[in-house]
Amino acid sequence: MAARGRGIPRIEMSLFRKTVQKMTAYVPGEQPAVGTKVTKLNTNENPYPPSPTVADAITRELEGRGARLRLYSDPVALDLRKAASEVTGLPIGSVLAGNGSDELLALLVRAFVEPGESILYPTPTYVLYETLAESGDARIETVPFGPDYALPDALFGTKAKICFVTSPNSPSGTSHEAARIEQLARSAPNTVVVVDEAYADFADENALSLVNRVPNVVVLRTFSKSYSLAGMRIGLLFGSEEICTGIAKVKDSYNLDRLALAAGAAALRDQTWMKDNVKKIRATRESLALGLKDLGLFVFPSSANFVLARFDSEDRARNAYRTLKDRGVLTRYFDRPGLADSLRITVGTDDEIAELLRGLRNILGR
Amino acid sequence: MAARGRGIPRIEMSLFRKTVQKMTAYVPGEQPAVGTKVTKLNTNENPYPPSPTVADAITRELEGRGARLRLYSDPVALDLRKAASEVTGLPIGSVLAGNGSDELLALLVRAFVEPGESILYPTPTYVLYETLAESGDARIETVPFGPDYALPDALFGTKAKICFVTSPNSPSGTSHEAARIEQLARSAPNTVVVVDEAYADFADENALSLVNRVPNVVVLRTFSKSYSLAGMRIGLLFGSEEICTGIAKVKDSYNLDRLALAAGAAALRDQTWMKDNVKKIRATRESLALGLKDLGLFVFPSSANFVLARFDSEDRARNAYRTLKDRGVLTRYFDRPGLADSLRITVGTDDEIAELLRGLRNILGR
Repeated sequence: MAARGRGIPRIEMSLFRKTVQKMTAYVPGEQPAVGTKVTKLNTNENPYPPSPTVADAITRELEGRGARLRLYSDPVALDLRKAASEVTGLPIGSVLAGNGSDELLALLVRAFVEPGESILYPTPTYVLYETLAESGDARIETVPFGPDYALPDALFGTKAKICFVTSPNSPSGTSHEAARIEQLARSAPNTVVVVDEAYADFADENALSLVNRVPNVVVLRTFSKSYSLAGMRIGLLFGSEEICTGIAKVKDSYNLDRLALAAGAAALRDQTWMKDNVKKIRATRESLALGLKDLGLFVFPSSANFVLARFDSEDRARNAYRTLKDRGVLTRYFDRPGLADSLRITVGTDDEIAELLRGLRNILGR
Repeated sequence: MAARGRGIPRIEMSLFRKTVQKMTAYVPGEQPAVGTKVTKLNTNENPYPPSPTVADAITRELEGRGARLRLYSDPVALDLRKAASEVTGLPIGSVLAGNGSDELLALLVRAFVEPGESILYPTPTYVLYETLAESGDARIETVPFGPDYALPDALFGTKAKICFVTSPNSPSGTSHEAARIEQLARSAPNTVVVVDEAYADFADENALSLVNRVPNVVVLRTFSKSYSLAGMRIGLLFGSEEICTGIAKVKDSYNLDRLALAAGAAALRDQTWMKDNVKKIRATRESLALGLKDLGLFVFPSSANFVLARFDSEDRARNAYRTLKDRGVLTRYFDRPGLADSLRITVGTDDEIAELLRGLRNILGR
């Protein structure tokens, strides 16, 4: 704030919308500087690189020393959506591309929720929903998950405008059957049920089959997890043509750049690469869960690329988080009711997980 | 709509917000498919490639066959903002990076304008402001420019929450003195005056000196024009630290991908490249203006990388647009009051402009 000392005149904070004055920004997981030697198990990135066809596609788009970058990117992301249509079997008109699924979540709120209307979701879950609801002046309705993390009955028959269902859920890792999500959507025909499937490629099931069969279901996917492209900000929305057309009205025209469009299409067209990595991660997930149980921790059954491990007490969880961090192993600790006794641990490589387990064994004295 | 024939159940359109139901999406300029042989003078792209250091920086970020792309990008865009701070002399805390300046415009509306509050701008100007205001349920107040496109007196003392001032303005190409913008901002201390300077590098003057001196002034820049990076979606906002901090609360955490961040920083650090291109474009702009005047058209004095040329009648302008298009020369025609007798022509290379002028000479029989 040295600048203020130099006599910079200040704007009235009251010029900001009341909501924004009160808001605290969503704090993403720590991102250590490039070159720092840390084992990064805190933001659910994929430990394996993306398909080499991605770098090839980007390099092709750079031909002629980047000359093509002077031209706007495709505002309707046709080739990326075509690739998504090929992979899913859904029509191109049922696919919308976003600058990460975070942008698509924001667009959904902007398209469907009037100020004062409700957004519903079971908790704990992805905390961005709260930020987005606040920023859209929506009323937030939450229902706590029970100990088994099944979809709570209280969601059914909701009058909320949007109901977010994260499946697999973060930070619990638990997932929901498509049939149960269908029941929820049918019980609330005036609610858009947004199934946030960021981690679905690591699960046995997903809700993609509901798109175009249950009109009020929207499914979101991201390239940040299974496709190893967190750094490229690519997300997809699957929904009826009506929904996609309506949401497109509130999106920035050129929301994805040329290189992200090329990267996304290439990644989708190499399903084998993605599935091989998913297979490795699922195998490591099982050995991680076993290792944590051996240390006496409770581990929720995970369908994602992370696990949630519960300690005996909040103090022990907090201490484990800090001590691991001091040793260069980052995990995610949520200082919130119901989660403060747990750590969320990303499934890294086998070596990374061995390092984590060694650290924990030491900390817990087991 | 074949999908509907196959019996896909439809969502109630009334689920969308009323505003969204009524909205028509912003229609960006035509983007011909790659490989199509057209002379593209319709969306104010730069005819010259970006600095070769941009492709180099992207290639560096792709080292190890794209392995780094698996990690999230820097949510606070530190290196890009540092480069911007070096170029402008403004503190890093006064710089915010966006996914194109379009995203920054949307964030400004979201941060400052409550539903029902006003957004003011002189017309004709960038039509996206209308879309953004509608999507934010803002009241739209417009004041028509006079024939000289000077800032209308009616803007002064406004009570609107945001006043957009595009300088140089599109589609007129005319610009406003910083001193006049300062007067406007001081006359309306509870209004955020957003100076949209997408084309400022092509002008003799800009309003950057007002940042941190006049608290309610915000300046926007884009990399799509002078830096030849329309395909990369990079924009910058310059404002007081308070403004930047507040707006950051409503932005997506990771709004720029790794390659866009690298591209933007590299482009900023090669000012010579950008300025050389700007010099060429300004020279071509003058010969284009002369050529159009020789054909009997009225040409507004342009400080941008395009000119607005007025024909004798709306029919002539429309006919010129269509005939040029048939010949493979795209220009921008706005079928709106006060503009329907004019064409906006991007300053291309000398060859492209020669082709355009040959075409027009033929059409006008001169």
